[in-house]
Amino acid sequence: MKNFLTALSLAAVLLIGGCTSSDGIIRTKVPARPAGQCDMLGFAADPIETVRVGFVGLGMRGPGAVDRFTHLEGVQIVALCDVVSENVEHCQRLLERAGRPRAEAYADGEFAYQELCKRDDIDLVYICTDWKHHVPVALCAMENGKHAAIEVPAASTLDEIWSLINTSERTRKHCIMLENCCYDFYEMTALNMAQQGLFGEIIHAEGAYLHCLEPFWAEYWNNWRLEFNRTHKGDVYPTHGLGPVCQALNIHRGDRMKTLVAMETSSRMGAPAYKKITGRDIDGFANGDHTMTLISTEQGKTILVEHGVMTPRPYSRMYQLVGTKGFAQKYPRPGFSFEPEQLPAHICHENLDAHEFVPKDVYDSLMEEYKPQIVKEIGEYAKSVGGHGGMDFMMDYRLVYCLHNGLPLDMDVYDMAEWCCLAELGSISMEHGSAPVEVPDFTRGGQGKIKGFSYAFAK
Amino acid sequence: MKNFLTALSLAAVLLIGGCTSSDGIIRTKVPARPAGQCDMLGFAADPIETVRVGFVGLGMRGPGAVDRFTHLEGVQIVALCDVVSENVEHCQRLLERAGRPRAEAYADGEFAYQELCKRDDIDLVYICTDWKHHVPVALCAMENGKHAAIEVPAASTLDEIWSLINTSERTRKHCIMLENCCYDFYEMTALNMAQQGLFGEIIHAEGAYLHCLEPFWAEYWNNWRLEFNRTHKGDVYPTHGLGPVCQALNIHRGDRMKTLVAMETSSRMGAPAYKKITGRDIDGFANGDHTMTLISTEQGKTILVEHGVMTPRPYSRMYQLVGTKGFAQKYPRPGFSFEPEQLPAHICHENLDAHEFVPKDVYDSLMEEYKPQIVKEIGEYAKSVGGHGGMDFMMDYRLVYCLHNGLPLDMDVYDMAEWCCLAELGSISMEHGSAPVEVPDFTRGGQGKIKGFSYAFAK
Repeated sequence: MKNFLTALSLAAVLLIGGCTSSDGIIRTKVPARPAGQCDMLGFAADPIETVRVGFVGLGMRGPGAVDRFTHLEGVQIVALCDVVSENVEHCQRLLERAGRPRAEAYADGEFAYQELCKRDDIDLVYICTDWKHHVPVALCAMENGKHAAIEVPAASTLDEIWSLINTSERTRKHCIMLENCCYDFYEMTALNMAQQGLFGEIIHAEGAYLHCLEPFWAEYWNNWRLEFNRTHKGDVYPTHGLGPVCQALNIHRGDRMKTLVAMETSSRMGAPAYKKITGRDIDGFANGDHTMTLISTEQGKTILVEHGVMTPRPYSRMYQLVGTKGFAQKYPRPGFSFEPEQLPAHICHENLDAHEFVPKDVYDSLMEEYKPQIVKEIGEYAKSVGGHGGMDFMMDYRLVYCLHNGLPLDMDVYDMAEWCCLAELGSISMEHGSAPVEVPDFTRGGQGKIKGFSYAFAK
Repeated sequence: MKNFLTALSLAAVLLIGGCTSSDGIIRTKVPARPAGQCDMLGFAADPIETVRVGFVGLGMRGPGAVDRFTHLEGVQIVALCDVVSENVEHCQRLLERAGRPRAEAYADGEFAYQELCKRDDIDLVYICTDWKHHVPVALCAMENGKHAAIEVPAASTLDEIWSLINTSERTRKHCIMLENCCYDFYEMTALNMAQQGLFGEIIHAEGAYLHCLEPFWAEYWNNWRLEFNRTHKGDVYPTHGLGPVCQALNIHRGDRMKTLVAMETSSRMGAPAYKKITGRDIDGFANGDHTMTLISTEQGKTILVEHGVMTPRPYSRMYQLVGTKGFAQKYPRPGFSFEPEQLPAHICHENLDAHEFVPKDVYDSLMEEYKPQIVKEIGEYAKSVGGHGGMDFMMDYRLVYCLHNGLPLDMDVYDMAEWCCLAELGSISMEHGSAPVEVPDFTRGGQGKIKGFSYAFAK
């Protein structure tokens, strides 16, 4: 094979080798951990009897979050903040309707959140702003001694990611990304099945955000979301796809993401969409119509993540687990397949064909048999509250439960980092012709401290 | 972003740039076309009234091919060749059962095909051997003035690919790869819909071979297929996934594959499978359990190809077309979705939701409305003959039809090259940490000569 390489490219290969220990991988800078600071792995804050919350960003996802919190016990909604005062007032009415007291309102411009963060009667700042404000608000919250919960994607650049990590580590405050898809009924059940070994060893996983946003662009304040796509290359919204499969793969809890490569189509849809929404012609649109990222892990596993928000197609997060003894695929319709010996006899007595999805009755039995404890506790109530079919409420419920009980949260600041880093790392890869880029160890040496993903429960 | 690159990796990037016009892409050698030789684009041989065929390789795919040819008019089955004489005899009985004369038998060792190729009463050598013998037999056939039709993958290395191209160009003999999945009813209908613009511009496509071969390894003569996987890294079986989507993307007929990157899992399943089949412990198995290849095209489109033959899962070739106005996905169940204005009113009057697959009745109407001419001609008969539900027969029918009528074949030697090259190019990518590798222009300058993929028909 070597003799096929031209002298030119052979030279290139050798030169890459010569520069970076013969691996040719682009590495981004990992800032050294400041002296005296330690990681947040397994971190638990002191129990909080009543979780006092301030919400920042009440346009799209905020009102739903406020409403869900009115259904939680042991919480107090202290403050509401948005640049648009009508949005604050809308949420006040949600509180009134739920028989809760009105909250303190903050609507005096872009930096009103700073006053909210300075209050001494708030434990948690829940952030649903546009992406650009996620990090400034979260940093301000932690600096003022509050835990920060941030909508997806919490951060969009490596700079932002490292800021959140360093601030969380220094202030000893939780920084959780609100990745609701980790609480979807199928994903949680599949995770439980994975943890009980039904798929054997999971060797490959897939996740995605494939959702035509054309009908939704206009709903975002000042077109911030379309604007973000116009100015940013890469998979800018990777966490719905990546989060749930990283939990199943025990990322930074036994394995870790090592390198990635990314590739995208050119942009054909962006400029026309922009014209339609803003009336303005633009010259160039950064985000490709379809983006793919391949990730390799230290244990020789792989992850595929896709992003496509421009073209018409049925919604899909893909969600696939490829195991040595079984297989899960959620879209376009949820299914599983297994080596016959993987299933308990009371679920499937008959011959099971590993080459077919299990029949509907077996599927239903599996969803019941492997229902996670959290779903048993709160699943039905979550469905009645709503929020993407209940998953949003299960997420909030777990966040408050862990804070009440002084437990580590389900997702830590390193999950946030790993799930968000695809945007800039993929962009670097694509700017270098899809060259491999190293995924930093965001725990900075903490790999192996935690063995396997798990939910914490009070004794 | 640049300031995140360490000095070390920045240097690497610059050095790559310095070597290969700042693109860092690994290039394989493109052998110069010998003087006086020209390309095979649009090549048509003289019409052949009766296509006289010799079959080489009668173990797995061979007998089915012989049987299908007994259902074709204007063909004569002249010779049968296999290293196992019982296989030849089995095919003789197929001929007898069909009321055809027995053919000349060649079963005298590994090189018996050479005698077959030397006959002067054969027009076409149809090759169904193990992969290792595809190319020697095809070269021998063309050197002896016969057209060569080769099972998938026709070639496994760039060396082999260039040999087939050069020999086909020099001898002016067809060299067609028998990619039967291009003749599947769904794929052909989707292609027709694509060509009529129903999906708008197709910007991304996916294809795969995801099929657990565990139950089948033992069926291959001397375990050649498992042995091939043991000794070869890369997507060694890419053509079923790649072929049909390349037709839809007009590859080398308006666009061309430019670069690829590949990534695989480590091998966990290979050695145990090998032990089970051969009883032997082995140290190392080259082929990863799951392999992915991302391809970029000159027009800024992308293709994802997956390969997985080791783990239990439902069969899938993925087959996705992502267009600016519509979407096709074949697995796990075939579907389409469209912007409402894309469909003729008589097929769908009601509100169509581009975010959902079309309902069953619309799907059925589409499959009928966009039935390709070939399926209209021969589809029902093909189903009755069989061979993967009829697609194998439609492939053979078209091959013979084009030879009868002196038309260009549906797939040319450059299709073979493009669809097969993933194996070695992906392997090179993976040996360099998933570095980007250029896909050669196998037409050596013939891009743009043919505008769009089409089937040739007699006037």
